[in-house]
Amino acid sequence: MRKIHLGLLGYGTVGTGVVKILLENKDLIVSRVGAELVLKHVADIDVRRDRGIQLSAGVLVTDAQKVVDDPDIDIVIEMIGGTGIAKELVLRAIGKGKQLVTANKALLAIHGNSIFKAAAEKGVELAYEASVGGCIPIIKSLRESLVANHVTSMTGILNGTCNYILSQISDEKSTFETALSEAQQNGIAEADPTLDVEGIDTAHKLAILTALSNGMEINFKDIYIEGISKITPLDIEFAAQFGYRIKLLAIGKNRNNSIEARVHPTMIPFNHLLSNINGTLNAIALTGDAVGDILLCGHGAGMMPTASAVVGDIVDLARNLLCGGGRRVPLLSYQMENLRNLPILPIDDIFTHYYLRFSALDRPLVLSRISGILGNHHISIKSVQQKGRKTNGTVPLVMLTHRAKEADVKNALAEINCLDVVGDHPVLIRIEDENNQD
Amino acid sequence: MRKIHLGLLGYGTVGTGVVKILLENKDLIVSRVGAELVLKHVADIDVRRDRGIQLSAGVLVTDAQKVVDDPDIDIVIEMIGGTGIAKELVLRAIGKGKQLVTANKALLAIHGNSIFKAAAEKGVELAYEASVGGCIPIIKSLRESLVANHVTSMTGILNGTCNYILSQISDEKSTFETALSEAQQNGIAEADPTLDVEGIDTAHKLAILTALSNGMEINFKDIYIEGISKITPLDIEFAAQFGYRIKLLAIGKNRNNSIEARVHPTMIPFNHLLSNINGTLNAIALTGDAVGDILLCGHGAGMMPTASAVVGDIVDLARNLLCGGGRRVPLLSYQMENLRNLPILPIDDIFTHYYLRFSALDRPLVLSRISGILGNHHISIKSVQQKGRKTNGTVPLVMLTHRAKEADVKNALAEINCLDVVGDHPVLIRIEDENNQD
Repeated sequence: MRKIHLGLLGYGTVGTGVVKILLENKDLIVSRVGAELVLKHVADIDVRRDRGIQLSAGVLVTDAQKVVDDPDIDIVIEMIGGTGIAKELVLRAIGKGKQLVTANKALLAIHGNSIFKAAAEKGVELAYEASVGGCIPIIKSLRESLVANHVTSMTGILNGTCNYILSQISDEKSTFETALSEAQQNGIAEADPTLDVEGIDTAHKLAILTALSNGMEINFKDIYIEGISKITPLDIEFAAQFGYRIKLLAIGKNRNNSIEARVHPTMIPFNHLLSNINGTLNAIALTGDAVGDILLCGHGAGMMPTASAVVGDIVDLARNLLCGGGRRVPLLSYQMENLRNLPILPIDDIFTHYYLRFSALDRPLVLSRISGILGNHHISIKSVQQKGRKTNGTVPLVMLTHRAKEADVKNALAEINCLDVVGDHPVLIRIEDENNQD
Repeated sequence: MRKIHLGLLGYGTVGTGVVKILLENKDLIVSRVGAELVLKHVADIDVRRDRGIQLSAGVLVTDAQKVVDDPDIDIVIEMIGGTGIAKELVLRAIGKGKQLVTANKALLAIHGNSIFKAAAEKGVELAYEASVGGCIPIIKSLRESLVANHVTSMTGILNGTCNYILSQISDEKSTFETALSEAQQNGIAEADPTLDVEGIDTAHKLAILTALSNGMEINFKDIYIEGISKITPLDIEFAAQFGYRIKLLAIGKNRNNSIEARVHPTMIPFNHLLSNINGTLNAIALTGDAVGDILLCGHGAGMMPTASAVVGDIVDLARNLLCGGGRRVPLLSYQMENLRNLPILPIDDIFTHYYLRFSALDRPLVLSRISGILGNHHISIKSVQQKGRKTNGTVPLVMLTHRAKEADVKNALAEINCLDVVGDHPVLIRIEDENNQD
């Protein structure tokens, strides 16, 4: 039986999951691939920690570079993460003509274009299903299943930590701080949660999806990013009264090749399928001109779900090698020379619905003065709620707007903020309705 | 630029959708594939009907066999449907060494094994994404993305007609007959709805999914099938009172290589993701040992969604041809020689939870006599509801059982049916809980 030799770099959580699957489901994989996937080397600086797995002697090594350079190795699996040594090793592996699997969204979001260019020049295939949405087959769907479609819209819950925290604030009426510290205790949030709760991890993933669905280079730096740390139980409660749930969404749209790519807390209606995706689950809803709406949902993180996607990628590359086919699918789904230069719209230029919450002094004419300013900025109000719970002498005044331009909203809020009848800074949360038309 | 020549057999609804996509999204497809997909021939007996598409002269022909025999044609797309002429043409195309795309679930469910054998012997690739779940990438996910997993459970809403009718009965309190005739008026149900409402179409699809997920030959004949024509608003109402919704589910399970494959109306809890899949939408929830739970949802029928899956398959085969790789993925995800002989459990041997509704005469000791018989057959009762709406002198007596064996339940019902205190035949609906353990 033919053998395909694997070299795994990084024996952390996901790396351990990959090894587990390769060992425990070995027969299953052989019966599907018709060849043996031999894990020749696992490289990690920590060779002592007990991962509960018995590797054969000599498999676990410390020198990742040696693994990359080993002429026996057919497929290199980068599970180190980050943009430092991982980048060097990936480029080195490409240089050596190795097929590559990675789950490293930060690396692809930031250095993906140069890495893909190098891979294309060398004729190397790079598979990265696990970089977005864990086990959810979104990358393969965009690169293969949905190729007949112009993808016009994509909304995703792509970070389990944030979704867990927001679910806790919604369901348990926790504050953000309490929900975060509970998530940390449960191993759902990192000790330094910045990448997750500030939306950066979600934006890394959106950068990859936006490139794939629009046939453009990866553009992380122009994505608008806003995290969830300012979401309060009060806003979640108001949202519910209007029939909405708050989720951290990755939103990608293509309106006649004008590209939106933004990450921020978003209100979505209860009957939107994404609003029922709770806890650490991830999901991606997308709209294509032929398929209409489609939803993919699953575990976006965790040892085994992520490892499942990585092993799926390994099998894909192994099948390429076995049938002598080499590279079948272009790295970003479009032929490299057909990638388009489509700029991402600045956030000020988008149009959407808004939820605005003001801390208004309980005086006459407050509503009239605020709505007057909004009107002057072409923002029309859909509904208003004023509830009598006074804190620090102010009451919350909540408004939902019709479709408005972000720049207009910001200018209006700046003006309103100078009024003597308004307390704290106004809160702005964008709304994603079934169709943000009116 | 290299050209791949296509021959389409069948210019009906989906065939027309395929032509539309190939023409309207031609540039998109070229920029992704790096080659031109040339629709050389479309064969249909009806060459007069206006499909709103202008084909070049000579493209539309009546002789499908000639298209199959044309040595220029690289990929044959069978969109005729049914198991008659479609089977002949598919086998003929395989004989000529053509790559094949089909959406024909009936053909694959009934003749798939011999067709796949012929294709494997000839080294021909056959793609069939559109045969199950329309645009939902479930076939590719099972053959490729999820290969690292033993799939232990699969529950699917695979027929839009049934899901629409059940949604109407639930939401509009229609009877089955009203909902069906409305569906027929809206073009959602066929004039002869038997294949759909009796669960046969769903079973065709389940036969394919069961083979794929377990690595066994396609076995349609042993699937238990029960349609939705006996579902009443009364049972839907009782279901809701217990926190369940009724869906026509395709259920596939592998419990230590003991295979369940059954299609029947099923109660699922409100918080199950499938319970929110309404109208004509399809969805598949599956559990794998590595991925955990995953859900894929989208339009399971209709011209453009189904055509999207077909064109995805065409691109897949074209990419194989272009990279000279030929067959990469075995037809049923496992290597042909590794397919296992796993029998499907008879329905009498399954264990699950049951909803039972009796028409009981309003007399003393009825509950005691019925529950006594259930107890004698090892069926333990979880909850009982008796409501005073008398019809024909009887009141509905509803029971939910703990986990019980189907044969025991049937024997108990036969015995209960002979009681003088029971009116019409009892109603039995199976329940699919998060875990049917207790």
